[in-house]
Amino acid sequence: MSAPRRISILGATGSVGLATLDLVSRAPEGAYRIIALTANRNAADLAKLARRHGAQFAAVADPAAGAALEEALSGSGVRCGAGPEAIIEAAAMDAGWVMAAIVGAAGLRPAMAAIETGAVIALANKECLVCAGDLFMQAAGRRGAAVLPVDSEHNAVFQALNAGQKGHVRRIVLTASGGPFLNWPLERMRLARVEDALAHPVWSMGDKISIDSATMMNKGLEVIEACRLFDLSPAQVDVVVHPQSIIHGMVEYQDGSLIAQMGSPDMRIPIAAALAWPERMPTPAARLDLAAVGRLDFMAPDPERFPALDLARAALEAGEGATAALNAANEVAVEAFLNERIGLLDICAAVADALETAEAEETLPKRFSGFDQVFDVDARARRLAMAAIARRESQRG
Amino acid sequence: MSAPRRISILGATGSVGLATLDLVSRAPEGAYRIIALTANRNAADLAKLARRHGAQFAAVADPAAGAALEEALSGSGVRCGAGPEAIIEAAAMDAGWVMAAIVGAAGLRPAMAAIETGAVIALANKECLVCAGDLFMQAAGRRGAAVLPVDSEHNAVFQALNAGQKGHVRRIVLTASGGPFLNWPLERMRLARVEDALAHPVWSMGDKISIDSATMMNKGLEVIEACRLFDLSPAQVDVVVHPQSIIHGMVEYQDGSLIAQMGSPDMRIPIAAALAWPERMPTPAARLDLAAVGRLDFMAPDPERFPALDLARAALEAGEGATAALNAANEVAVEAFLNERIGLLDICAAVADALETAEAEETLPKRFSGFDQVFDVDARARRLAMAAIARRESQRG
Repeated sequence: MSAPRRISILGATGSVGLATLDLVSRAPEGAYRIIALTANRNAADLAKLARRHGAQFAAVADPAAGAALEEALSGSGVRCGAGPEAIIEAAAMDAGWVMAAIVGAAGLRPAMAAIETGAVIALANKECLVCAGDLFMQAAGRRGAAVLPVDSEHNAVFQALNAGQKGHVRRIVLTASGGPFLNWPLERMRLARVEDALAHPVWSMGDKISIDSATMMNKGLEVIEACRLFDLSPAQVDVVVHPQSIIHGMVEYQDGSLIAQMGSPDMRIPIAAALAWPERMPTPAARLDLAAVGRLDFMAPDPERFPALDLARAALEAGEGATAALNAANEVAVEAFLNERIGLLDICAAVADALETAEAEETLPKRFSGFDQVFDVDARARRLAMAAIARRESQRG
Repeated sequence: MSAPRRISILGATGSVGLATLDLVSRAPEGAYRIIALTANRNAADLAKLARRHGAQFAAVADPAAGAALEEALSGSGVRCGAGPEAIIEAAAMDAGWVMAAIVGAAGLRPAMAAIETGAVIALANKECLVCAGDLFMQAAGRRGAAVLPVDSEHNAVFQALNAGQKGHVRRIVLTASGGPFLNWPLERMRLARVEDALAHPVWSMGDKISIDSATMMNKGLEVIEACRLFDLSPAQVDVVVHPQSIIHGMVEYQDGSLIAQMGSPDMRIPIAAALAWPERMPTPAARLDLAAVGRLDFMAPDPERFPALDLARAALEAGEGATAALNAANEVAVEAFLNERIGLLDICAAVADALETAEAEETLPKRFSGFDQVFDVDARARRLAMAAIARRESQRG
């Protein structure tokens, strides 16, 4: 029997972290050894997971949750930590495989710390690529760290790329479910409520990503990710709306063959593909029965009702500063929508406003030289988005 | 620049042969060197192709066509041959890549001669695998000859298998267009005319394969082929009806990922995949635009209206003798249908009759020991099918 694979999970209490641990639980005894688990502030759940899986180290990002974690783990033998530096410490431990599933820009430094160890990185954090893709991929290249995407679309493309060689790729296609507003006319979308936007037809996800899916900003961010992850030009990354979300992604080769990865909408499939890579492992995901599914639909995205895609492509053409600003402004605008301060269509409008101002200020570098610059652009874009939101709020009255 | 790839095409004047030469014509000057071209009896077309591509050797299977070929090639510098032995000679020439596209059992010995040279074999001849799959694959294994399927379904599976490892395959899925009678009720199918059966909705093919597609015997033969080519158990090969024929084949891995190959219905795509293998080459095939296609449908095959699939699976379980007899009896029955001697539904009924009698005679070996045995079973099954057809003809009045 081979030695256990040493794995750490950054963001263990979120849906991706829990799905990863679910697969670990189902694997043969001794296949995995859990090194570190981290959470934002959910000390109770993190402590339970750390005990159940015999983790070496558990850390919460929020210093205020440190005492609760320590108490919950007392006598368990699991070492504890709290605060951003504890998360970095967890990421830098000696694991061969690290799931980077911390949501948002907070995931950047921990993911980079994991990269620096040379571990295989299963990447569920979009911001690493959207905000600092080149820094990130360069570091991975330097350390020989494999970066395996866990997003179902990118994981699909990653799998399909194994059926050929990079030099023979014509383009890739990411599928988009179209979200809950796929068939809503523009006027109705204007009045969409938060609960309408959270009612995703296929995937059950967190609030932020559900809203991104409803505006299709999620797909825009994924186009940016794909270009950086797979080293493709923006023109090589297409999007097709596919409401059933059965085909997750495709690669078109120069002979006209499209290789697609399909599967039930169950995150355990792409996570398993990353966890077992370059092997595969069984999962409890429902088997795909195409005859039972009956039909798969495809349509072009509508740029009028879903301007986020074009916004993302424009940012991609403009450079790394613009994509980081896009991401930051969008986070702020989504939050404002969730708090019912602005309407659904205001999200993209506010992001566009913020980007326009930032571009006029000439504060968006074509390429980032380091993380500090990333965080500066991020902070400035947030302020600009807040101002844009405030203007829209006052107009709305 | 690398040395030209030395290629031969057995069955050069058929649709697969012509499509292969079309790709060769579009390739950069000097990429390919044509060694041998063969045809059944179409000396005029063969001579034109041999001159155009500067073949070393051209051969017709029909000795009666030899003189015409010689005349048409006089002064060209292309050496000529006629008769079955000339085809074997062509197959055994020193080519690194051989397209085996001779239709029917006549293709067996030439394909085996090509295998014996250790060349890469692009296999478009079903009979090699349906009638003598194990002999064939064993010889290929012994000689280290790669066998690349050219059938769009098997080529799709071959491509999708590159995205994983054989040991992680759960099953494969072949798609079936369903043919022209997909939505005909049984009673109407009983009265189907030859022209109805030849009107295939997607692919433009020869008469024999069009009829096989209409009865779905084609898919039954493909299930047999797939088991032998990919070394799978019959339970690992599923069929799903997919009228648009956009997805050609799929591989399901144990994690729940299905890897599919899709493309426009253009034979040049799978041929190019075999011709350029393990690289890829550009083709002029129409690019697949899924948004323009709009939808893909899937349904389970109907065993009542299309009994050929179950017939083929039963033969596969029975052994090599049964699959060879199935193929031979089907050829005879299709010919009788094309000659309007029997109805569409009589094809499978006659094949079932012939197989039943052959099984009762205990003349169907579980495994073949050599080609002579294959040809004996083939000849006997043809006689039994003729008798079954005669009985049905007399009943029909």
